Parts: sequence; C-alpha cells; structure tokens
Amino acid sequence: MNKLLVFQSDFGMEDGAISAMEGVSFGVSSELNIRHLTHNIPAFNIFEASYRLFQTVNYWPEGTVFVSIVDPGVGSNRKSVVAKLKNGSYIVTPDNGTLTHVNEFVGIEAVREIDETKNRLKGSSESYTFHGRDVYAYTGARLAAGVIDFEGVGPELNVKDIQKVKLFGCNRIEGGVEGAVDILDGRFGSLWTSIPRSMFDECGFRYGDVLETEIYHDGKKVYSKKVKYETSFSKVDISDPIIYMNSANHMALAINQGNFSKAYGIGTGSNWTITMKK
Amino acid sequence: MNKLLVFQSDFGMEDGAISAMEGVSFGVSSELNIRHLTHNIPAFNIFEASYRLFQTVNYWPEGTVFVSIVDPGVGSNRKSVVAKLKNGSYIVTPDNGTLTHVNEFVGIEAVREIDETKNRLKGSSESYTFHGRDVYAYTGARLAAGVIDFEGVGPELNVKDIQKVKLFGCNRIEGGVEGAVDILDGRFGSLWTSIPRSMFDECGFRYGDVLETEIYHDGKKVYSKKVKYETSFSKVDISDPIIYMNSANHMALAINQGNFSKAYGIGTGSNWTITMKK
Amino acid sequence: MNKLLVFQSDFGMEDGAISAMEGVSFGVSSELNIRHLTHNIPAFNIFEASYRLFQTVNYWPEGTVFVSIVDPGVGSNRKSVVAKLKNGSYIVTPDNGTLTHVNEFVGIEAVREIDETKNRLKGSSESYTFHGRDVYAYTGARLAAGVIDFEGVGPELNVKDIQKVKLFGCNRIEGGVEGAVDILDGRFGSLWTSIPRSMFDECGFRYGDVLETEIYHDGKKVYSKKVKYETSFSKVDISDPIIYMNSANHMALAINQGNFSKAYGIGTGSNWTITMKK
Repeated sequence: MNKLLVFQSDFGMEDGAISAMEGVSFGVSSELNIRHLTHNIPAFNIFEASYRLFQTVNYWPEGTVFVSIVDPGVGSNRKSVVAKLKNGSYIVTPDNGTLTHVNEFVGIEAVREIDETKNRLKGSSESYTFHGRDVYAYTGARLAAGVIDFEGVGPELNVKDIQKVKLFGCNRIEGGVEGAVDILDGRFGSLWTSIPRSMFDECGFRYGDVLETEIYHDGKKVYSKKVKYETSFSKVDISDPIIYMNSANHMALAINQGNFSKAYGIGTGSNWTITMKK
Repeated sequence: MNKLLVFQSDFGMEDGAISAMEGVSFGVSSELNIRHLTHNIPAFNIFEASYRLFQTVNYWPEGTVFVSIVDPGVGSNRKSVVAKLKNGSYIVTPDNGTLTHVNEFVGIEAVREIDETKNRLKGSSESYTFHGRDVYAYTGARLAAGVIDFEGVGPELNVKDIQKVKLFGCNRIEGGVEGAVDILDGRFGSLWTSIPRSMFDECGFRYGDVLETEIYHDGKKVYSKKVKYETSFSKVDISDPIIYMNSANHMALAINQGNFSKAYGIGTGSNWTITMKK
Repeated sequence: MNKLLVFQSDFGMEDGAISAMEGVSFGVSSELNIRHLTHNIPAFNIFEASYRLFQTVNYWPEGTVFVSIVDPGVGSNRKSVVAKLKNGSYIVTPDNGTLTHVNEFVGIEAVREIDETKNRLKGSSESYTFHGRDVYAYTGARLAAGVIDFEGVGPELNVKDIQKVKLFGCNRIEGGVEGAVDILDGRFGSLWTSIPRSMFDECGFRYGDVLETEIYHDGKKVYSKKVKYETSFSKVDISDPIIYMNSANHMALAINQGNFSKAYGIGTGSNWTITMKK
C-alpha cells in the first residue's frame, strides 16, 4: 500500500468531526499520508459523492484508499463496504449508491463487507451515530497502512448487488444530443452534463461549430441560444457562453469569466435537461 | 514527541494567515505532520474553541501538540500558555478560557507560561497582532519537533489559576433532566446539549422511551413535542425528531435527514434551555 | 529541494479539482509534502492571488515551490511560467500579473517559461480547461521533487517582461499619508492599506498618536474619524477603531473585536482611498 488515505464527506469543516477521524487514523499508523477530497458535499447528497469520486480516483496512484462518508442511513441496515477498483485503488463507504459512477466509468473488481467485529475502533460500540470515525476511517486507515489486506476487510459480496443511484443518461436526437445537468463546476457555476465527449464526436461536432443549445426545467424551456463549441474559455469573448469538454471528459457549458448557473438560475438533476444540435 | 501539530483558529481559510503559520512551523522542522482541526470557529468565540478541543483531543495519539488561536485579547496582558493534558497531549493557547472543557472533561496535568524571550519567532518583535504566527505556531512547532521539552516552554503556573468560560451545566428535575444547548453539530444543525449520557442513565431512560421534550429561549417555550430516545437517526422516520447520544457522550436532538436548528430557529448558549422527561 | 509544494487557487473546496491536482502530484513523487495556502481567492481575482503570495512566501523555508492558479485566460496565449524568487523559493503560475507583489516586495531572480512538450501530464493533451492539474501541479511537483531543476522548466524569459497588475501606491500629503485599501484581513474585515510602515515612520507618527482618518469611495467621503495609532487591538476599547501595522508590515485599520469593512461598507481597490494625518 502507498499509505495514501483520502477522505470525503458531507460534514463540512466547521466542527471537530474530520479531526477526530484523522486522529483515529494516525492512532492506527503515524505513517499515513491523509488527504481530503472535499467535505463540502451537500448534506445527504449521494449522487454528488459518487460523482466527485469518479472525477478524482483516476488521478491518484494505484493503491490509494478513499473513505467517503455521505451516510443518511447511518444506523440502518445499509451495509458498510470496501470496493477494490480496476485501477488498483480502494473506496471505503456505506453501500448506498456512492459507488455508482465509479462502477460505471472506472470499474469495480471486487467488494467486501466490513466485518465490524474486527474492523471497528475499540471502545466505540456504544456510539451509534459516527460510523465515519468508528468504522470507515478506522478501516480505511488499517487498509492504507497495511494492518489488514483487502481479504481482512470481511466477507466478499457480489459486485452486481451494490446499491446504485440513477444516472441521468443521454441520447442521440435528430441533429444532436440530449442529456441532463449532472453537477456544477464548483464555484465557477459551469454546467457539467451527462453527455460524454464520445457522443459529441459521433454527431460529427467539431471545434468552432455553433450549436443550438436549449435547457429545460421539468420540460419548460428556460434557455435557448446559439453557442460555440470550443477548446477553452478564452476562445470566446468575455461574458459569452461556450460549450467545451470538461476535465472529466463530458460536455459542459460555461460563460467565459462568468457563472452560467447563477446567470440563468440553472440547477442540477434529471429534471434539468439540455439539448445541443447543429 | 510524535511530530503531530494540530492547528485550530477563528481565522477562516480565505487569506494567508494559516499558511504563514505552517511555513514558520516547517522552518522549525521539516519533519512535522501539520494538521487542521478547524479554522471556522466563529470569530472571538472562546466557548466553541474550548468545546472543539474537548470533542477531539482524546482521539489523537499521546504527545500530539494542539495550537488553538481564538484570541480577542491579542496584545493585552492575557497570558500565553501550554497545558499538558492527562492524556499525554498538549495545548498551546492564549489563557482566555480555551482550556475550560478540556480541564473539566479530560484533565490538565500542568500548565506553563510561554517565555517569549526564548519562544518567539526571530525578527518578529515589531509585530503585535499575529501572535498565532510569531508565538503560538512557533512554540507549538518547537514542542512537537522536540526542539524544546515541556519545561522549555517557560515557568510553571498553577492549574487552578487558568481562565475559564462558564459551562452551562445540567440538573435533575422531576421526571427528567434539564440542560442547555452547548453547540450545533456543524452543518447538520443537530442540538448538542450540556447533559451527559450518565445523567440520562441515572434517570432510568432507555432506548425506545418517548420523552416530553421542551426547549426554552430566555424562559419562553419555543418547542414542545414527544420525542423518541434511540440509538441512531434511522430508528425514526425521515423528518421525525430523535434524542440520541452524540459522539462526545452527551445527549443531542436531531431531525432524521433534517436540520433541527434551522427547522425551529434554535440557537446555542445558556439562554437556550431544554428539558426532557418521561 | 525541500519537497514542500504549496497550492493556491480560486477553485474553492467544493469539488474534486484540488484533489485531482494532489493525486497527479503524488503520482510524480510520494515524498512530496503538499500544503494549501488558500483556494478561496475570489474567482478570477489576480490582485488577491498576487497579494496572498507576498503575504506568505517569506515565512516558508528556502526552496519551497508555490503553485498559484488564478487563470481567467486559460487556453489563451498567456504564458505559463516559473519564477525563482530572491529568497530561494519558486512560484509556478500563469504569467498574468500573479507575480506583481512578489516582484515588488520580495524580488524575482529569474523566470522561465514552462515547456509543455516536457512538462505536461501524459495523456492530457486533449484537455484544454484544467491546466492547473495538467501543467501547473504537474510541473510544480516535478520541481519540488527534484525530477527537474529550474533549468528543466523551459527557456529563460526576461524578468522585466512579466505581466503586472496595477499596484495602488501611496503618497505623502500635507501632515500625513494617502493610500488605498489593498485587501481585507479575511473574515475579521480589517482594512489593509497600500501604505507601508516605513512611510508612517517618515511622517513621524508614533504609537499613541491620534490621526484624522478619512476614507473615500470614488472621491466621495464615506468615513471621517479621529483614530488612535497603537500596537494592537486591545490597546483601544472594545468596538473602538484602531490604526496598526499589519502582519505584512503595512498600515491597517480595524475595530477592536468588530468588523471594519462590514461596519461601514468599505470595499477594496484603487477607488477606496484613505488619508491619515495629524
């Protein structure tokens, strides 16, 4: 193992929760290199947790252990699992859909259920609300430090049985493509769609093309403009819109040096659909 | 020493202050493992600084050095101190009440005043407003790196003389308990009360009990409901309230997948009192 | 090299961008010590990026590699450069003015343009919008890890040719000084001015002096009060204003335990001017 342990959660950075998880992990091994993906996943938003992992895991060295805790079902009978990815890294998470994008776009080799009789912080059995600290950080730290190997996590599950959230999908339509707004590009407010670059290529779209672009909210049109497809923001004038390929190889919509989401009040989810045609 | 140096402050993460403190610390020793508890303590809020340390210190390995800088009195005659905790860790802080919860719930073995003739960044004597960098980070780094030992901090003070903030306390009342809202659970908005689990046990309350729960603001009732006492959120329906033991072994009040504080406009402090009875 | 790699950007901490940059860097070398100055620079604000570096770089050990990515011109013909500072550290950045304050107040020894045929993440040539990950983090990591030396960055440029933002300047006026509000002190809202302490000294101002202080917005007076010049906040009563030297050796204006910017609606920039006289 490479000692890299990367945390993600919807806990925010205002209190002592993240620090307690770090402390428990360093108690397992002082050699760990603990990093943070983000702790600003919107509360209980499993889709975003799943997306941020997909956006990130392929850039980390093989053997990195990710611990993702967006866990609205803490204390229910949802399982606690560790997935071994096809790229050689691991994700420790409640089995609640957090593995969806990684399963679809990166690939999962195997999944094991955490055996809490072995992989649970000593003395924490009376604590029922902070599995992030008592189970997930502790197990992730043991795996990243080499105290246990993947088999030591617990019994194997069938990869097909992991929980999934609904992906928004995309379609070829006459003259173009249709998809939904998956997520925003952080504070820049660009719209990242569910349309992969490969589908754009199939349509024969090329840099420099100007595309009829429409956005719908629950079927009602809220945006309609001709937008240029280009490599990067500065290829259009400041304040002009642009279609581009985002850093996760999907099509996206931005305003050069502006905020698309705020400018037109566009949100994310399957009810925010987008069409682009010649 | 274990080389672990953990910073906390009310500085936020918007400017270069935290980074200057890190740089000064690595100038003391490149071997330090610098971590961050939180820098989002509300400005000048010593009570929260004290609470977040209490919530965290027991999860870190023995010998960890915490540096907490919530310092409305910078430049006054408030003392700069290092406390050695009974768990073997250290806290570097202005002596302004920040040590209150740790003194009450973890235990302080000894306190020393920082001798600034020895423990102050070279060349910083003309700087009067950033003791976080010039005194606290620098001293914490020297202690964590083993450049000085605890005696090297400066002269010993009497533990009884440290400054304290008022704790809100709690009482047995007929049929139950009474306390106040200490703090919120970060962005989830759950109410963490001043009532320890042990007092709940004394009342004979058991998981599954339904308790008459009332919240008062300056003596005026603002919430009154029967609430179930359970182990974890998912034991009640989504959107239902629940009484549970928080991760710091005190009683708390949440809404399953909701935000209790926002739902009813509940704040924190001694004027937000709560009663729970059978 | 000392293995210290310090990131700054306007990306915020809400998504996976920072983590992808960290992953790429650890892919270069697992020995790197990656730190974060701030990722909360206001979007596209090159002046603040420049200021935060100036505020910080002198507190880090010689040889530290800073990577600053506030890059509204990504994809344009703006250059990507590495500056070697006179203090022995490095800054990797788009050449868009980010080096202005460091050039003025710290000193730049040499600048080289990044040769992307050598210093670009393998497989990223189809990605045009995330040079932070593909070029800047990757090059910074290689330099900090010693994979390349400064010459290995690419061809040398003339230091005189680097892009600059306008500094606000300051002047002696009858009885005192005049300057502008450079920046705010994070969440405390103190006004950090463009007036260096040395100019204050030239005026003969001494601690304890009371100065006529006026603030103008686009030439219109918005604040006028007698304010005491003192070493530190607690030298004036709570809620009183104070003039002091900030931690970057410039003159600043605060309210003791208050927020000057919010109290009077004062912003930053060359159109927010300030005069202080006896």
